[in-house]
Amino acid sequence: MGQTVQPAVVGATGYAGFELARLLFRHPNVKKPVLFTREGEGTPERLDDIYPHISGNGASPLEPFRWEALRNRGVDVLFLATPHEVSREWVPQAAQQGVRVIDLSGAWRLATPAYREIYQFHDNDAAVADKLTAEAVYGMPELHRDKLPGATLVAVPGCYATSIILPLTPLVRSGLIDLNHGVICDSKSGVSGAGKQPTAKTHFVEVAENLSAYAVFSHRHTGEILEQLGLAPEQLVFTPHLLPIPRGILSTIYVRLNSVMQPREIEDCWRTFYAGAPCVRVFPAGKLPQIQYSLHTNYCDIGFALAADGRRLVIVSCLDNLMKGAAGQAVQDMNVMFRWKEEEGLR
Amino acid sequence: MGQTVQPAVVGATGYAGFELARLLFRHPNVKKPVLFTREGEGTPERLDDIYPHISGNGASPLEPFRWEALRNRGVDVLFLATPHEVSREWVPQAAQQGVRVIDLSGAWRLATPAYREIYQFHDNDAAVADKLTAEAVYGMPELHRDKLPGATLVAVPGCYATSIILPLTPLVRSGLIDLNHGVICDSKSGVSGAGKQPTAKTHFVEVAENLSAYAVFSHRHTGEILEQLGLAPEQLVFTPHLLPIPRGILSTIYVRLNSVMQPREIEDCWRTFYAGAPCVRVFPAGKLPQIQYSLHTNYCDIGFALAADGRRLVIVSCLDNLMKGAAGQAVQDMNVMFRWKEEEGLR
Amino acid sequence: MGQTVQPAVVGATGYAGFELARLLFRHPNVKKPVLFTREGEGTPERLDDIYPHISGNGASPLEPFRWEALRNRGVDVLFLATPHEVSREWVPQAAQQGVRVIDLSGAWRLATPAYREIYQFHDNDAAVADKLTAEAVYGMPELHRDKLPGATLVAVPGCYATSIILPLTPLVRSGLIDLNHGVICDSKSGVSGAGKQPTAKTHFVEVAENLSAYAVFSHRHTGEILEQLGLAPEQLVFTPHLLPIPRGILSTIYVRLNSVMQPREIEDCWRTFYAGAPCVRVFPAGKLPQIQYSLHTNYCDIGFALAADGRRLVIVSCLDNLMKGAAGQAVQDMNVMFRWKEEEGLR
Amino acid sequence: MGQTVQPAVVGATGYAGFELARLLFRHPNVKKPVLFTREGEGTPERLDDIYPHISGNGASPLEPFRWEALRNRGVDVLFLATPHEVSREWVPQAAQQGVRVIDLSGAWRLATPAYREIYQFHDNDAAVADKLTAEAVYGMPELHRDKLPGATLVAVPGCYATSIILPLTPLVRSGLIDLNHGVICDSKSGVSGAGKQPTAKTHFVEVAENLSAYAVFSHRHTGEILEQLGLAPEQLVFTPHLLPIPRGILSTIYVRLNSVMQPREIEDCWRTFYAGAPCVRVFPAGKLPQIQYSLHTNYCDIGFALAADGRRLVIVSCLDNLMKGAAGQAVQDMNVMFRWKEEEGLR
Repeated sequence: MGQTVQPAVVGATGYAGFELARLLFRHPNVKKPVLFTREGEGTPERLDDIYPHISGNGASPLEPFRWEALRNRGVDVLFLATPHEVSREWVPQAAQQGVRVIDLSGAWRLATPAYREIYQFHDNDAAVADKLTAEAVYGMPELHRDKLPGATLVAVPGCYATSIILPLTPLVRSGLIDLNHGVICDSKSGVSGAGKQPTAKTHFVEVAENLSAYAVFSHRHTGEILEQLGLAPEQLVFTPHLLPIPRGILSTIYVRLNSVMQPREIEDCWRTFYAGAPCVRVFPAGKLPQIQYSLHTNYCDIGFALAADGRRLVIVSCLDNLMKGAAGQAVQDMNVMFRWKEEEGLR
Repeated sequence: MGQTVQPAVVGATGYAGFELARLLFRHPNVKKPVLFTREGEGTPERLDDIYPHISGNGASPLEPFRWEALRNRGVDVLFLATPHEVSREWVPQAAQQGVRVIDLSGAWRLATPAYREIYQFHDNDAAVADKLTAEAVYGMPELHRDKLPGATLVAVPGCYATSIILPLTPLVRSGLIDLNHGVICDSKSGVSGAGKQPTAKTHFVEVAENLSAYAVFSHRHTGEILEQLGLAPEQLVFTPHLLPIPRGILSTIYVRLNSVMQPREIEDCWRTFYAGAPCVRVFPAGKLPQIQYSLHTNYCDIGFALAADGRRLVIVSCLDNLMKGAAGQAVQDMNVMFRWKEEEGLR
Repeated sequence: MGQTVQPAVVGATGYAGFELARLLFRHPNVKKPVLFTREGEGTPERLDDIYPHISGNGASPLEPFRWEALRNRGVDVLFLATPHEVSREWVPQAAQQGVRVIDLSGAWRLATPAYREIYQFHDNDAAVADKLTAEAVYGMPELHRDKLPGATLVAVPGCYATSIILPLTPLVRSGLIDLNHGVICDSKSGVSGAGKQPTAKTHFVEVAENLSAYAVFSHRHTGEILEQLGLAPEQLVFTPHLLPIPRGILSTIYVRLNSVMQPREIEDCWRTFYAGAPCVRVFPAGKLPQIQYSLHTNYCDIGFALAADGRRLVIVSCLDNLMKGAAGQAVQDMNVMFRWKEEEGLR
Repeated sequence: MGQTVQPAVVGATGYAGFELARLLFRHPNVKKPVLFTREGEGTPERLDDIYPHISGNGASPLEPFRWEALRNRGVDVLFLATPHEVSREWVPQAAQQGVRVIDLSGAWRLATPAYREIYQFHDNDAAVADKLTAEAVYGMPELHRDKLPGATLVAVPGCYATSIILPLTPLVRSGLIDLNHGVICDSKSGVSGAGKQPTAKTHFVEVAENLSAYAVFSHRHTGEILEQLGLAPEQLVFTPHLLPIPRGILSTIYVRLNSVMQPREIEDCWRTFYAGAPCVRVFPAGKLPQIQYSLHTNYCDIGFALAADGRRLVIVSCLDNLMKGAAGQAVQDMNVMFRWKEEEGLR
C-alpha cells in the first residue's frame, strides 16, 4: 500500500503528543506527520531538541500552526493533543476547513450538557458546537467501530475512562451487574497523566515515596464513564490516585452480580464481546493483569477475581495511559477510520 | 522515672524487628533491648553489621536465643518479630516461663477457628493454644486500651488491618454504615510489608514501574478485619495491592451510609471516638491523607469524601506499615501495658 | 538545662527549612522556634497546612517576617533557609540589629571574590559585605569548631561540598594526596537538593527512570570545595548528577596517593582526624557506605577502596542532603555555637 | 527478502534473553525464534506464561534444550543468554555441531588469561577452549565490523564495557588521551543488569531510595575494557554503582588530554570515527546524554564537557543495558554477520 494519508499533530511537545508523533513516524500507512506548535509554546525548531530520545532517526521539524498550512501541506487528518479549551475553539474552525480531526482532549467526548459543565467551555457559536457534539464519535473502536470510518470528528476517550469502560461494558450490556448496588472504580495512574507542565503536584519529591487520592467525586472523566455505560451519577464512585511511576493505569473495579455466577461465565462474557478486538486482552480467572504487562503497548488488559459466593466481583484492568489511554487509541481510531488493520503501527 | 523495664526482641534483623529495635534503643523508659537471633538466621554479631544505619550509636550485640537467657537477662517483656509459625510455637513456652509477650505476627490475633485456617497452625497442645488465644489481647490500644495493662500476651494487629479497622470502627459502632450493602477496602502497601526475604515478588525490576493486586478474597488479614468490625465474610471485600515504594499503606474504603449525612457529622464521629487517642489524626473534610504524611510516624491518618447525595462515603486512611502497622504499634502497646504515656518514644 | 535560647527560621516552607523547623521543634535546649515567611511566599497560617506530616504535634504558626518581630520575640539566633540573594541582602540588616545568623544559603561561604562571581551578588554596601565575609565562619564544625562559639554569622556549607570536603580534608592536610594529579569528584544527589519550586528539571516524569549529569565545570559549590581544601581550580573536577530519589548524596572521589599505602593507614588517617567528631562515621576497608545508611541522620559516612598498587584511591562518602547537607549541619553549628553537646537534638 | 535464517535462544526467561526474544519475534529477516529452556529452569510451556507482556502476539512455546533439536529445527544461529559457566561449557559442543553462536555472557570475551581468572572457568578441553577464544569475535560492530560476517562465535560485550569502550576508543586511537595519567570510569547501572535471580542485592527495599558502589577494582568487565582499549591495569579505575531504576547505564568518564583542545575537535573525533555507525549518537558540546534518552533503543549516546583549560575532559555515555548493552547489540551482531542493514529490527 502506498502511503497516501498525511497526518498532522498539534501539541507534539506534550507527553501524549510526543507518543503520538513517535507512533505516526513509524506507521507504515501514513506519510511523515507534520508537527505544529501553537503560539506561546516557545519555538524549538525540531521535536528532537526537546526529546533527544528520537534524535538519529531523521528530521522532525516543528512549525508554527497556521490554518493555511493545513491545506498547503495536504493534511488529511489533524490530531489535536492540546488542552481542551484549545480543542473546543479549534475544532469548529477545522470543520469549516473540512479537515477530519482526532482530538485527544476532553472537549468533544460528552453529549450530556450537565457533564460538560466541569470543563467550563466558552463556545463562540453554541449551535455549531451542538452540531459538532452530535457528530463526534467517541473514539473507542471496541464500542463504536462502525461509526469511525465516516467520522469527521473523533473524541479520543480519557485514559481512566478507557480502563473502566472497556471491562464494564460487556457485563453491563449482558445485564450481569446489579447497577443499583453501585459500581466502584478505584483507579491508580502514573504521573504522565497529569501532563508535562511542572506543578507542585508533579514535583518528584511530592510524588516519590507517596500515594494520594484526588478529585474524589469530581474528576472530569466521570461524565464519559457514566454516558458510555448508561449509568446514573449515583450509581458510580470513581476515585483516582496518583502513583509514583511515570506511566500506566490500574483500575480495580467492584461490582455485585445479579445472580450467582461461575468464573468461567464471567471470562466468557468478555471473550465473546472482545472476540474481534485486537487491543483487549482477557486474562484467565486466577491471573491478574499488572501495570508492567501493558506498558508501551496498546492493550487494555482485563482480569478478575470472583468471591466464593459467586456474587462479589473484583475486576482489575490495566493500560498504558499514553498508549491505549491516549496516543495509541488515537492511532487505533485512525486505523479504523481509514479501514486499515486496527492494530496497524501499534505492535 | 528510672529505666526499670528490660525488653528483648527476637527477629531484629527483619524490617519490622529492626524498626522495633531502633524504637526501643531510644525509648526513655526501657533499658537497652536484648536482641536475640533464632537458630538458622546466620550469626552476625551485631545488628549494625546488617544495618550500618545505626552504627555510631553504641553497641547493638546480637545473641542466639535461649530460654535461660530470658531469665538471666531479667527480660520483662519479649517482643516476637518472627514468622507466625515461630510465634505460634514459642508463645506457649514463654507463657510457661511467665514472660509477657508482644507478638508482631498473625499467630494470636484470631479468635475464630475458621479464620485461622489460612495460617495452618500445628499446635503441640490445642488446649494450651485455646487458653492463650482466649487470653490474648488484640493490640490496638484505640480499641482495647483497658485490656492491655493486665495482658500477658498481646497480638499486634496486621498492617493492612490497622489501616481498615481504625477508620471503620467508630462508624460501625455508631451504626452509620449499611453493612449489608458491603464494605470495600482497596489497600495499597509498600514492599517492606512483604518481608526481607528476597523473592520474585520483591525483586526491584518486578516492583518498580508497576502496580499489582494480589490475594484478592484470600489475604490473611481478612479474618482480623471481620472479627474486630463484627462483619460477616460476605460483607467485606478486601483487595491488597503492591506499591513501588519501600513503606507506607493507603487504604481507600467504600461504604454506604444508612442515612443522608453531612460531612461534619462524619468527621465528628471520628473526632469524638478518638478524642483521647494520640496516634490517630482525623483530617477535615476536603483534605485527604497521603502516604508521605505518615511515614516514619506512629499515626494512622483518616480522611474522607462524601458524595453530594450524602450516602456514598469514601474513606482514605494512611499509615507507615513498619510503625503504626507493626513496630510502632507494638511499642504503643507496651506503653499502655506499663501505664506510660501512650505515645512515649514514638514522637 | 532550661530552654533559654529562642531560635527563628525564615523559609521553613522549603525542604531544608522544614527539616530545620522539625529539628528545632524537638531540640531539648531551645524554645519553640518562631517561623517567619517572607513577603511573596503566600500566606499559609501554619506550617502543618503545608506539611500535614507534623500536624498533631502542636501548633506551628507562620508569621510574616518583620525586623521588629525579632526583638519583640526575643530571637537569639536567626536561621535563614532562604535563596542566596535574600540572605545576601538580609544578613547586613541582621548584623545591624545584633542578631546572630546561621545562613543555609551560599551567600556567605566564599572568601575569594572570583568564586563568588557565579552568584552575581548585588551588595548595597560593599564594605559591609566585605566585613561580614571576613567575619563569617564556614559552618563545618569538624573543621572550624573553635570559631563557632564566638561567631555572629555562620555560613552552613553546601550539601555536595560537605560530602567532598569532609573525606578529603584529612588526606590533604596529611599530604597524602598528589594534588597536581587532580582530584575528581563524581557526586550524585537526590531531587530535594534542587529545591521545592516546580521546574522541568524536578518533574517526576523527567527524573524517574533517569540519571543525568549537570553543571559540569560550573556548579556553585566548586568555590567552597576549592577554598576549604586549598586547591587550585585546575586541580579539581566536580560532576554533579541528579538521582531519581528524594534525598541523599553519594560522592565517589578519585585521588592518587603520593606514596604506596596500606588500607589501614588510610582508614587511620580519618579515624585520627575525626576522633572527636560525633557526626562522621568512618567505614572499615572493604565496606562502603550507601545512601540509605545515612538517610534521616546527621552523619557523613566515609569509606574507601584502595587499588592493589596502593596508589589509586577511591573514596565513597554519603550523607542526607537535608540533614548533614543542610538543616542538620545548621543545628550542629548552633550546638557548637552555644557550647552544647555537638549532636544534641540530632540523634 | 525471504525469512530464511532460523534463530534459537537459550535463556529467554531472563531479562536479556526475553528482550532478545522480543527483538527476534519482530525482526523482519528471521523466522520465529526457537526458544529453549535449560534443565533445572522449571518447565513453563510458553514464554508469555512468565512474561504476560507479550501475550496476544501469537504463540511463544518454550521447549527443553537438546542438541538434536538444533538440527531438527534447522537452527542457523544460536543465541546463548545463559550464565557464563553454561556458555563456556556449551560453546565447544555447538562448535562441534557447526552451529554459529552469539553468546551474551562473559565466557568468550577475553583473550588475556589473567583477565579470565575472575570467571574461574573449568574447561574440559583447554586446547579447544583456546582455539575458540582465538576465533571468537568481540561483538561490538563499531570496532570489529569486518570480522563479523565470517564469525562462528560472537562474544557480545558487557553492558558497562560497551558504555566505556565506545566513547573512549576514538580518543585513544587518535592519541588524544594521556593514558599514563589514568582513565577513570564512574558507571551507574539499573538493576536489571544484576539478573532476574532474587537476591538481597536486588530486593526492592534495598535498592529503592539508595545508591551504592560495588566491586570497586574487581568488576568482571574490567578485563574487556583493558583489552579493547589497550590499557594496562594500572591505567584504569572502574567503579560500578547500582541505581534505583530498572534499566539503563550512565558512565561518567574522566581523562586528561595530551594537548589543549577545543570542544569542536573532540566532537569531530567521535563524528569521524562513527560516521557510518548507526547505533552511536554523538551529542554536541554543551548537551549531555541522559539515561532516559536511550531507554528501549539500541543507541549508545556520547556527550562531553571540556574544562576551560582544554585539558580536563568529562565524557558522559548512556545506553540501555538490555539493548545496546546486551540483546540489542546481539541482534546488531547478527545483522552484520548476515550482511543485513546494521540496525535492522532495532528501530
